Amino acid sequence: MEMGSEVRNKQVILKNYVTGMPKESDMAVTTHNTITLKLPESSNSVIVKNLYLSCDPYMRGRMRKPDSPSFVGSFVPGSPLSGYGVGKVVVSGHPNFKEGDLVLAWGTTGWEEYSVIAAPETLLKIQSTDVPLSYYTGILGMPGMTAYAGFYEVCTPQKGERVFVSAASGAVGQLVGQFAKLLGCYVVGSAGSKEKVDLLKNKFGFDEGFNYKEEPNFEAALKRYFPEGIDIYFDNVGGKMLDAVLLNMRIHGRIAVCGMISQYNLDQPEGVHNLVNIVGRRVRMQGFLAGDYLHLYPKYLQMVFPYIKEGKVVYVEDVSEGIESAPAALLGLFTGRNVGKKVVLVARE
Amino acid sequence: MEMGSEVRNKQVILKNYVTGMPKESDMAVTTHNTITLKLPESSNSVIVKNLYLSCDPYMRGRMRKPDSPSFVGSFVPGSPLSGYGVGKVVVSGHPNFKEGDLVLAWGTTGWEEYSVIAAPETLLKIQSTDVPLSYYTGILGMPGMTAYAGFYEVCTPQKGERVFVSAASGAVGQLVGQFAKLLGCYVVGSAGSKEKVDLLKNKFGFDEGFNYKEEPNFEAALKRYFPEGIDIYFDNVGGKMLDAVLLNMRIHGRIAVCGMISQYNLDQPEGVHNLVNIVGRRVRMQGFLAGDYLHLYPKYLQMVFPYIKEGKVVYVEDVSEGIESAPAALLGLFTGRNVGKKVVLVARE
Repeated sequence: MEMGSEVRNKQVILKNYVTGMPKESDMAVTTHNTITLKLPESSNSVIVKNLYLSCDPYMRGRMRKPDSPSFVGSFVPGSPLSGYGVGKVVVSGHPNFKEGDLVLAWGTTGWEEYSVIAAPETLLKIQSTDVPLSYYTGILGMPGMTAYAGFYEVCTPQKGERVFVSAASGAVGQLVGQFAKLLGCYVVGSAGSKEKVDLLKNKFGFDEGFNYKEEPNFEAALKRYFPEGIDIYFDNVGGKMLDAVLLNMRIHGRIAVCGMISQYNLDQPEGVHNLVNIVGRRVRMQGFLAGDYLHLYPKYLQMVFPYIKEGKVVYVEDVSEGIESAPAALLGLFTGRNVGKKVVLVARE
Repeated sequence: MEMGSEVRNKQVILKNYVTGMPKESDMAVTTHNTITLKLPESSNSVIVKNLYLSCDPYMRGRMRKPDSPSFVGSFVPGSPLSGYGVGKVVVSGHPNFKEGDLVLAWGTTGWEEYSVIAAPETLLKIQSTDVPLSYYTGILGMPGMTAYAGFYEVCTPQKGERVFVSAASGAVGQLVGQFAKLLGCYVVGSAGSKEKVDLLKNKFGFDEGFNYKEEPNFEAALKRYFPEGIDIYFDNVGGKMLDAVLLNMRIHGRIAVCGMISQYNLDQPEGVHNLVNIVGRRVRMQGFLAGDYLHLYPKYLQMVFPYIKEGKVVYVEDVSEGIESAPAALLGLFTGRNVGKKVVLVARE
């Protein structure tokens, strides 16, 4: 590939704002776009070739009309989606980056083959490449920081505490459970299939796991696994599971609210009825975003790299190949089709 | 009154466990009971003559069947209610107390004219009597500590922050608003009548107040008073107001959940639909009880006594006279009949 050449640039476009469950037809993969791999003389930007694009549940909020209550900017209909990804710098107008650098785009790369990054300061340069590159969209990226900050900073866990994680085999949940086990907690996870529950117990080392789709009564299921109650709930799903958890929290328990994926595609969110229990039980519920804890990222990498290398923490990914697969990959998050962290392989190098 | 004499001891009895809105007929005031003002030789107990009995919303939870999810023990049908109160020691078997001592019973005195206190260590001796004695059921008692701990410890307030208080003219709310004003916050309260809203603005110094019963749309009302959103919500009511607040919270806002009086008399609590907003806005919701902060009580008194004496904090009470009035006084909390802290004067000395 020659500097200055014009190349194909397939893009995943949002066609319209979405209400309810998003469909593949809400997006389109365009094949006619091209990009010239050249920047104007004075430009500070870089052009990145996208290698991996991350599928993250928060992206559902960006498919809404901008007047809806969402704190992340909406995508622009007719333009590519954007998000987290791993790429390689192919043209650089910025002194910190040179051709060939591998970078993690922290929410700022396009769902396309090549992206012009107008604010390269937001890119994190990837130093260690003795792990799968895709990990930088998962365990070494935003989901990893979400699990780390959410568990250690928000949940303020103690050895021996009883921890419940929902969506426990997902990009974040699988890490929370493993971190909690390493700390010496009792850990139970919920997930949406037998295969995922097997992962929890046999791969991630959870003490117990259950398939919520086979539990007619979440409250009873939780009582079964937590006869003495829950100290920490790492909430990825909200809704009915949260309601059942509120009936099972222990005094001075903590609920880290990472996301509420069960609610994202509903026109009217479900009601949570058991909130009053947080008073007598003195429960703290804390919503959080990994972005508030970015100053801890180096500390997190320092902790997690040895864990990865020693096999103390494992990470399961679910990779779709080709940018054409991206719309289905993203939607699969909302039907639970993914097993582990969902990522799209756009190009191998 | 002679030591050892038998005296009348009217009692307020719970007749049955209560579901839904409690009625006066759920209680009875007995007039036939007597008590002998004498303790066995070996007893460590004290007998207290109750002067003031405190009416507190949490007592509704104690009228439930004990298997209901409530973290305070249920009352026993056929026996007197119990709670916070101010009394005078008339017989003492405990070395720390002598006849004539004034005491604050921290949740442990009966709704009756005389109570035997089996664990006198739970009584706080009243030292300063240059304020109304009834204050020890309010600003100088549990509601005061609730406002103090809830505002300063749970809400972690900063000067200039925007504070919303519901049930703002009540035993706790009126103090939270005044504490927030003294710290330099912008403070708005909601209450259930014009008279109460006038109190907020003209007596307690709130910046604004509104009558929630005249607001068809709580969300719009809050947007009117908080065009830039709410930093701190001191929640005494739960339900629909909490739901509207969740749409108006600022990033990194805090919600101290003191109580949810709007829900206590419902068979099925209302659903809260807007919880998902705590994620993007990184809101902390914290349930709490004053009892966890009792170690701060001396510090609180040190702060609040000068405020009272200098007129920087005022306290509005709503006093019913006579133990016969106690059932109606208690029930009035749930219909908003009280204006300020509700207390029953049982005896003047």
